[in-house]
Amino acid sequence: MEYLQQSFSVRFDYKVFFTSGLFDPANTVLDDFLTADAASGSVKKILFVIDQDVLNATPALSDKIKQYFAAHKTVQLVSEIIVVPGGEIVKNDEAWFSKLLNTINKHGIDRHSYVAAIGGGSVLDMVGYAAAVAHRGVKHIRIPTTVLSQNDSGVGVKNSINYFGKKNFLGTFAPPVAVFNDDQFLLTLTNRDYRSGISEAIKVALIKDPVFFEWLENNAAALTVRDMATMKYLIKRCAELHLNHIASRDPFEKGSSRPLDFGHWSAHKLEQLTNFGVLHGEAVAMGIALDTVYSNLSGRLADDDTHRAIHLIKKMGFEITHPLLEVNSDDSPILVGLQEFREHLGGQLTIMLLNRIGEGVEVHEIDIAILKRAGEALKNEYSVLDTA
Amino acid sequence: MEYLQQSFSVRFDYKVFFTSGLFDPANTVLDDFLTADAASGSVKKILFVIDQDVLNATPALSDKIKQYFAAHKTVQLVSEIIVVPGGEIVKNDEAWFSKLLNTINKHGIDRHSYVAAIGGGSVLDMVGYAAAVAHRGVKHIRIPTTVLSQNDSGVGVKNSINYFGKKNFLGTFAPPVAVFNDDQFLLTLTNRDYRSGISEAIKVALIKDPVFFEWLENNAAALTVRDMATMKYLIKRCAELHLNHIASRDPFEKGSSRPLDFGHWSAHKLEQLTNFGVLHGEAVAMGIALDTVYSNLSGRLADDDTHRAIHLIKKMGFEITHPLLEVNSDDSPILVGLQEFREHLGGQLTIMLLNRIGEGVEVHEIDIAILKRAGEALKNEYSVLDTA
Repeated sequence: MEYLQQSFSVRFDYKVFFTSGLFDPANTVLDDFLTADAASGSVKKILFVIDQDVLNATPALSDKIKQYFAAHKTVQLVSEIIVVPGGEIVKNDEAWFSKLLNTINKHGIDRHSYVAAIGGGSVLDMVGYAAAVAHRGVKHIRIPTTVLSQNDSGVGVKNSINYFGKKNFLGTFAPPVAVFNDDQFLLTLTNRDYRSGISEAIKVALIKDPVFFEWLENNAAALTVRDMATMKYLIKRCAELHLNHIASRDPFEKGSSRPLDFGHWSAHKLEQLTNFGVLHGEAVAMGIALDTVYSNLSGRLADDDTHRAIHLIKKMGFEITHPLLEVNSDDSPILVGLQEFREHLGGQLTIMLLNRIGEGVEVHEIDIAILKRAGEALKNEYSVLDTA
Repeated sequence: MEYLQQSFSVRFDYKVFFTSGLFDPANTVLDDFLTADAASGSVKKILFVIDQDVLNATPALSDKIKQYFAAHKTVQLVSEIIVVPGGEIVKNDEAWFSKLLNTINKHGIDRHSYVAAIGGGSVLDMVGYAAAVAHRGVKHIRIPTTVLSQNDSGVGVKNSINYFGKKNFLGTFAPPVAVFNDDQFLLTLTNRDYRSGISEAIKVALIKDPVFFEWLENNAAALTVRDMATMKYLIKRCAELHLNHIASRDPFEKGSSRPLDFGHWSAHKLEQLTNFGVLHGEAVAMGIALDTVYSNLSGRLADDDTHRAIHLIKKMGFEITHPLLEVNSDDSPILVGLQEFREHLGGQLTIMLLNRIGEGVEVHEIDIAILKRAGEALKNEYSVLDTA
C-alpha cells in the first residue's frame, strides 16, 4: 500500500479576561489586548454585534462603544453596529447569519480584523459561526453577558446555528481570539436568567471537583441573593474547569465522549419540547437531578451524595423534574430524546453518570426501568426534600 | 489584569493513498482504510458526491461504487449518490451546497460517518465545506480526479464556496480523514486539463526544490506525451512537497505568509476576468512566468535561472502571458488584482518571489514600473524563446 502520511498539530491560545465596565474609557483591558494582538502593517477593523436583550437593559451601550474607540484608536471601529435578537431565534432564522456575512463583506472585514459579539450564548453561537466561515475565519472576540455564557459556552470553542429544525446542525470548532467577562452585565439579568447559569457550575462540580461542590453548598445562600463577589468566584472557577477540560481531553470532540454534557441529553429534549420555555440552565438542573438519581438507583452513587446533590439544586431555587422527563410509555418523549442522543453521537450511546460527588463515570447503556423509577423518585420523595 | 490562559493543540493525521482502480472489487485500499478508521459500536454510513464531468467520462462509476460496497460491508453505502456539476459553477451556486446539506440530514450522516467527494478541485472544495460544517464536521474523504487536485488542492486542508461573487468567501480549514489518488481517473482527462495541473508542480519546484525542478526539465517531453509512470512520480512528489509545507509552517494560515501562492495573485484575477475561460493551472503558469521575470528584473533572480523557468513553462505547452496581465494604465486589471490581494491578506502585501531556482523569498512591495516591464518582456523577448 503506497501512501504519504500527513501529521501536524495546530496550536490555539486565547485569554479569558475578567473585568468590570469593559467600555469605561479608563478601562484599558480591551485596548491592551488589541494593541498586543493586532498584526503590524495596516489598520485593522472591529465590527460589533449586540444582543437586543443586552441593548434593552443597557441602552447606552452602543454610544459607550463608540466613545471607547474614539479614545482608543488601535483598531478602527466599524460605525455600523449590528443588533440581533437574543435567544434561539437568532440561531433559528438564517437571515441573521446572512445579514452578518453581508456586513462582514460590506465593511471589508478580513482575516486580521475582528468581529466582536456581545450577548448571551445564542448570539455568541451565531456570530461565532459567521466569523468562523467568512474568509475561512476572521478574528472573533466574545463578550458574554449572562452567567451561563460567562462560565460555560462563551469560554469554549464551539459555535453553531440551527438548521432543518435541528439544534446546532451547522457549526464549527473555532476558538475565539479572546473572551471578556464583564461583571457589570450580570447586574441587568432577571433573577431567572441569573439563576439559570448556576446549573452548569453544579454540573461541573459534580463530575470534576468535590471542593467546588462544597463551596457551592456553603455559598448557595449568598448566590440566591446575588452577592457579586460570590458570583464572580463561581464564574471564574467554573470557566477554569471548563477551559481545563477542553485543553486536556479532545478539544474538537473527535471521539464520542462528552463529559461536560452531564445531565444534558434529557435537558436538550426538554428545551426543544417546551419551545425553549424552559431555559437551558433550568433544563440542565432537571437533567442533572435525573442522572444523579439514576446514578443512585443503578448502584453507583451513595444515598448521602445523592441527597446532597438534589438538595443543592433545590436550594438554588431550581425545579428538579418536569412531566416531560417521566417515562410513561415506550414512546415517552424522554425515550425519544435518548434515541436522538444516541444517533447524534454516531450510534454508540455514551452518558456521564456519577460514582461520587466530584467523580463522573461514563456508561454506554441506560436501563429504562431504572430511568422510570428515577423520574418517579424525583416527582415523589425528592420533591418534598427540605431545602433549608 | 485578571485572566485565565487557554492553550491547547489539536493534532490532525491523514494519509494520502496512491492507487489504481480504487473501486475494483479486488482493490482493498479503501476498505482497509474504513476498517481501520471506523469507530466500533455501530454501523457507519458513507455518502458519495460525484463530479458530473467525471461521471461523463466514466459512466459506470456509480455502479462500480455500489458493487464495491456490496462486496465490502464495513461501512454502509447511502444508496443515493449525488451528482454535481464540475468547475466553478458548483461553488458559485449555493443551491448545490444546500442540496448536499439536505442529503446529509436526510440520510442521518453523523460525525462518525463519511461524505466522500470524487472530482476536481471545485467539487472537493464545495463538498469539503459542507462536510466541515454539518454537525460541526462529519468525516470527509477526498478522491481527486485531476492532476491539479491530486497534486495540490485535494491533498490540503482548505475548503470553500464562492459568495457575494467573491472566490472562496466562505470556507474553513478542515483536514480530510483520507485522500485517495487513483491514477485511472487521469486517463479520462483532456490534454488541456492534464497539462493544467503541471503548473503547480513547476511552482512548488521553483520555490522549494531545485532537484525536482531539474527532474521536471528532464521529464518534460515524457509528461507532454502523458507517460503515466512519469506523471505518477510528478503527482506524488508535488503532493509530498505540498503536505510537508502545510505541516511545517502554518497549517491554518493564521499569519499573512502564503508561499504556495507563488504566481497566484495575478492568476486569480485572470481566472475571474476571463470567467474561468483560462483554467486555474493555465493562469498559474502565466502568473509564475510574470513573478519569475519580475524577480529577474528586480535584481533577485539570475538570467540563466529565469530562462530555465520560462523555458520549462513553455516546453510544457503553456502560454506565458495574457493581455489582461499587462500594465497599461493606473487602473489596469492586474493592478486592481494586486490591490484586492493586499486587502485579502489584511492590509500588508506579502508576495513570493525567487532568489534562485528552488528558493523563494517574500517581499512586501511591488514596483509597478518593474511589473510593467516584466509583462512587456514576456510579451516580446520571452515569447520568441526556443522551446526545443
